[in-house]
Amino acid sequence: MTIQRKLAAEFVGTLWLVLGGCGSAVLAAAYPDLGIGFGGVALAFGLSVLTMAYAVGRISGGHFNPAVTVGLTLGGSFEPRLILPYIGAQVAGGVAGAGLLYLIASGKPGFELGNFAANGYGSHSPGGYSLTAALVSEFILTFIFLLVILGSTHKKAPRELAGLAIGLCLTLIHLVSIPVTNTSVNPARSTSQALFVGGWALEQLWLFWLAPLAGAALAGVFYKLVLDNSARDPD
Amino acid sequence: MTIQRKLAAEFVGTLWLVLGGCGSAVLAAAYPDLGIGFGGVALAFGLSVLTMAYAVGRISGGHFNPAVTVGLTLGGSFEPRLILPYIGAQVAGGVAGAGLLYLIASGKPGFELGNFAANGYGSHSPGGYSLTAALVSEFILTFIFLLVILGSTHKKAPRELAGLAIGLCLTLIHLVSIPVTNTSVNPARSTSQALFVGGWALEQLWLFWLAPLAGAALAGVFYKLVLDNSARDPD
Amino acid sequence: MTIQRKLAAEFVGTLWLVLGGCGSAVLAAAYPDLGIGFGGVALAFGLSVLTMAYAVGRISGGHFNPAVTVGLTLGGSFEPRLILPYIGAQVAGGVAGAGLLYLIASGKPGFELGNFAANGYGSHSPGGYSLTAALVSEFILTFIFLLVILGSTHKKAPRELAGLAIGLCLTLIHLVSIPVTNTSVNPARSTSQALFVGGWALEQLWLFWLAPLAGAALAGVFYKLVLDNSARDPD
Amino acid sequence: MTIQRKLAAEFVGTLWLVLGGCGSAVLAAAYPDLGIGFGGVALAFGLSVLTMAYAVGRISGGHFNPAVTVGLTLGGSFEPRLILPYIGAQVAGGVAGAGLLYLIASGKPGFELGNFAANGYGSHSPGGYSLTAALVSEFILTFIFLLVILGSTHKKAPRELAGLAIGLCLTLIHLVSIPVTNTSVNPARSTSQALFVGGWALEQLWLFWLAPLAGAALAGVFYKLVLDNSARDPD
Repeated sequence: MTIQRKLAAEFVGTLWLVLGGCGSAVLAAAYPDLGIGFGGVALAFGLSVLTMAYAVGRISGGHFNPAVTVGLTLGGSFEPRLILPYIGAQVAGGVAGAGLLYLIASGKPGFELGNFAANGYGSHSPGGYSLTAALVSEFILTFIFLLVILGSTHKKAPRELAGLAIGLCLTLIHLVSIPVTNTSVNPARSTSQALFVGGWALEQLWLFWLAPLAGAALAGVFYKLVLDNSARDPD
Repeated sequence: MTIQRKLAAEFVGTLWLVLGGCGSAVLAAAYPDLGIGFGGVALAFGLSVLTMAYAVGRISGGHFNPAVTVGLTLGGSFEPRLILPYIGAQVAGGVAGAGLLYLIASGKPGFELGNFAANGYGSHSPGGYSLTAALVSEFILTFIFLLVILGSTHKKAPRELAGLAIGLCLTLIHLVSIPVTNTSVNPARSTSQALFVGGWALEQLWLFWLAPLAGAALAGVFYKLVLDNSARDPD
Repeated sequence: MTIQRKLAAEFVGTLWLVLGGCGSAVLAAAYPDLGIGFGGVALAFGLSVLTMAYAVGRISGGHFNPAVTVGLTLGGSFEPRLILPYIGAQVAGGVAGAGLLYLIASGKPGFELGNFAANGYGSHSPGGYSLTAALVSEFILTFIFLLVILGSTHKKAPRELAGLAIGLCLTLIHLVSIPVTNTSVNPARSTSQALFVGGWALEQLWLFWLAPLAGAALAGVFYKLVLDNSARDPD
Repeated sequence: MTIQRKLAAEFVGTLWLVLGGCGSAVLAAAYPDLGIGFGGVALAFGLSVLTMAYAVGRISGGHFNPAVTVGLTLGGSFEPRLILPYIGAQVAGGVAGAGLLYLIASGKPGFELGNFAANGYGSHSPGGYSLTAALVSEFILTFIFLLVILGSTHKKAPRELAGLAIGLCLTLIHLVSIPVTNTSVNPARSTSQALFVGGWALEQLWLFWLAPLAGAALAGVFYKLVLDNSARDPD
C-alpha cells in the first residue's frame, strides 16, 4: 500500500465526514417541521465514519481525524513517521468538504453563512456552556472515542465490526455534546469550519485542537498500560 | 445464475426502494405531530437498500440504481453487456413501486398527488436550492456513494457487512440532501416519481440522470486508478 | 431441540414483539414534546425482532409471526406439521405481552385504553385510509418482508446478519405504513391488541389475518420458483 | 486476564453508560426545537453498551450493570466470586460518569440540577406511573434484557454480533419505558444519579435495585432450565 493511496483515503474520508456531518447540520437540521434535529446530525456524523471505514479503512486505517492518528500512535497501533502527512491529508480533506458544502448551501436564495457548523464555547456554544465545560467535554469524549477505537480494532476483537462500533460511538458522542460545543472531537473538522467562519471561530479553534489531542493521547497511554497490556499479561 | 433471476432481483429491489423510501416520504413524513420527518425518510431509503442487499444481493449484486450499475462497470466490477437490461429492470421496478404507492396513498379521502416524492431543483427544490446546487449535490453524493460501494465490496474487505455500509450510506446521503433536491442519486427512483407527477418533474428529470451517472462514472474511474489500483500495487 | 423449547422461544419472542413494539406506541409515542413518534415506534418493532432473532432464533428459527411461519413453509424452509403449534405459541405470547403492557399502561392516573395499539382501516386507520389501501398495504409489505426473510437466511447468504436485515425490514415497513393501518404484517400482534380493545378491532381483525397470510404465502411460492430455484439452477 | 483489568473495563464501561446515556438525557433531550427527545436518549443508552461491548467486552465480558452480573451468574455464565468486585466497579464507574456529567452540565449559566436523570415512580415517574407499574416494568424489561444477553452470547450463537443485539435491546427497553420510570434496568446507573439528587431519589432507589436484580435472576434461571438446557438436550 503506497503512502499516496493512504493519504488519498484519508482525504476522501475526512471530506465525507465534513460534507456528511456538517452538511446535515447546515442543510437539514433546522428545516421547518421536518428537520432532522440534533439526533439526525448525530447519526450523520457517525455514519460518515462508519461508511468510510468500510470503504477505505482497509487502505489507510480509516482515521479521518488528527486526534485518532495521535491516539493510535501512542496506543502503539500506528507509525509515528506518518502522523504529519496524515494530519495534512485530513485537514485538506476537511477543507475540501467544507468548500463543497459552501457551494451547495450558498445555492439557496438569501443564504447567510452564519456559524456554518463551527465549534465554539461560551457565547458560541449552542447551549451557552462555559470554556471549562467545553474543555472537559471534548477531552473526555475524545478519550472514550479512542478507547473504543483501540479496543474494537484489537487483534483479538471481532475487527470486521469495528467500523460499526466506531461510527456509532461518534453518533453517541454527538447525541451528548452538540449542545455543549457543537461537538468536535476532531480538529480537522473544526478547522474546516473555522476557516470559512473566521473571527471568533478561529480564535476559539485552539481548544478544538488541544482538548481532542490531549484526550486521545491519554487514551492511547491508558489503553496500552491498563487495558491492553499484552506484554506483561498475554491472556 | 440465469439473467432472468438477476433481473427479477433488480426489479423487486428497486420496487422496494421506491415503495419503502418514497412511500415513507409520501405517507408518513408529515403526519401531524407523530410524523417521521426527513430523518425517518432518510432511514427508510437506507433500509430499503440494506434489506434487499441481504435478500437478493447474492443474486444480482444488489444495484437497484442505474448509477450504481454504471459506476460498478467503470470500476471494473460489472460486465458491460448487462448494463441496459439492468437499467430496464430497475426503471420498471421503480415504476411498479410507484404504482403500488399510488394505489395505497390514493386510498385516503381528499388525496392529492401533489409532488409525490419527485426530485427537483429551483422552485421545485424543497428548500429552494438552485440548479447549480442541485447538480453539485447529486454529483458529489453519487460519487461518494459509489466509492463506498466499490470499497466495501472489495475482495479484501469484510464483504458480508457491505450491505450495512451501503444502506447506511444512502441514509446519510438523504440526511444531508433532502432539502436540496429531495435526494435522488438514483435515476430509476426519480423517473418512477416523475412519470406520475408529469409536467415540471419530467422537465427536470434530465438532471437526475445526468448528475448521478456522471458522479458514479467518475467514482468508478477514480476508485480504479487511485484507491484500488490492484494491478500496479498488489498490497 | 425439543418442540417445547421451540414453542417457548416463539412465545417469549412474540411477547417481546408486542410488549416492545406496541408498548412503545402506547407508552412513549405521543409523550408531550419528547415523545418518540412513529419513527421511534418503527425502530422499536424492528429491534424487538432483531434482538429476539439473536437471542432465540437458534432455537425456533425466530418467526414470532404466523405469516412468517406460513411463508417459510411455502418457501420450503419449515416443516408443515409445526405450523399450528407455532401459531398457537405466537398468539399466546402476543396476548401475554399485551397483558403485561396493559398492566403497566393502566398504572397511570386517568388511563383509558382507547385504541391501544390495534390495527384498523377506514375510520380506524390512523390516517383514514380505505379498506382497499389497507389490504394492498398489508399484502405487499408482508410479501416483501418474507422475501427478505427467505433471502437473508438462504444457505449461501451471510446468515449471521439475517437477524439484522429482518429486524430492520420490519422497521422500514412501519416507517411506511403506520399511518395506513397502524402496521400489522403480523396476525398475532393484531390479535393481541384486538382482544383487549374488542368491538371494531375484532370486527376488522379478519383483514390482519387474511392480507399478511396471503402476502406471505405468495412470497414463499415466488421466492421458491423465481428467486431461489436451487433445483433447476444450482449456481 | 487479571482481575484488575476486568474491573478497569467495568469501571470505564459503566462510566460511559452514565455519561453517554444520562448525559444525552440531561444535556440534549429537551434542547429547544432541535433536541433529541426520548428517542435520541434511547439510542444513546443502547450505543453506550454497544460501543463498550466491542471496546472492552473481550476483557470483562461487558456487563456494566449489577443486574447483568447477577443474571449471568445464575444463568451459569459467570463466576460467583467476582460478583461483588464487579458490582463495586460498576457503581464506582457510574458515579464517576455522573460526576463528569455534573461538571459539564453545571457549566451552563443558570444550571439547576433538578432531577438529573434519576429514576422514579409515582410523582417522580416522568409520566406519573404508579409504584406497581414501575415494578412490573423494571422487572419484565430486565428479564427480557437478560434473555437477550444470555441467548446472543451462547456458544452456538453468532457471538460477534452479540454486542449489537444487546446494545439495541437496551435502546428498545428505553423506547418503551422512559415515560414509566425514566428507565433503569441497571442499579448502578440509578445509584449514580440518586447520589447527586438525594432526597426522593435515594428513597426510591430500592426499587431500582430490587426489580432489575429480581428480573435478571429469574431470567438466568429460566434461560438455564427452559431455553438452554444443554445438559438434557444437547441439540
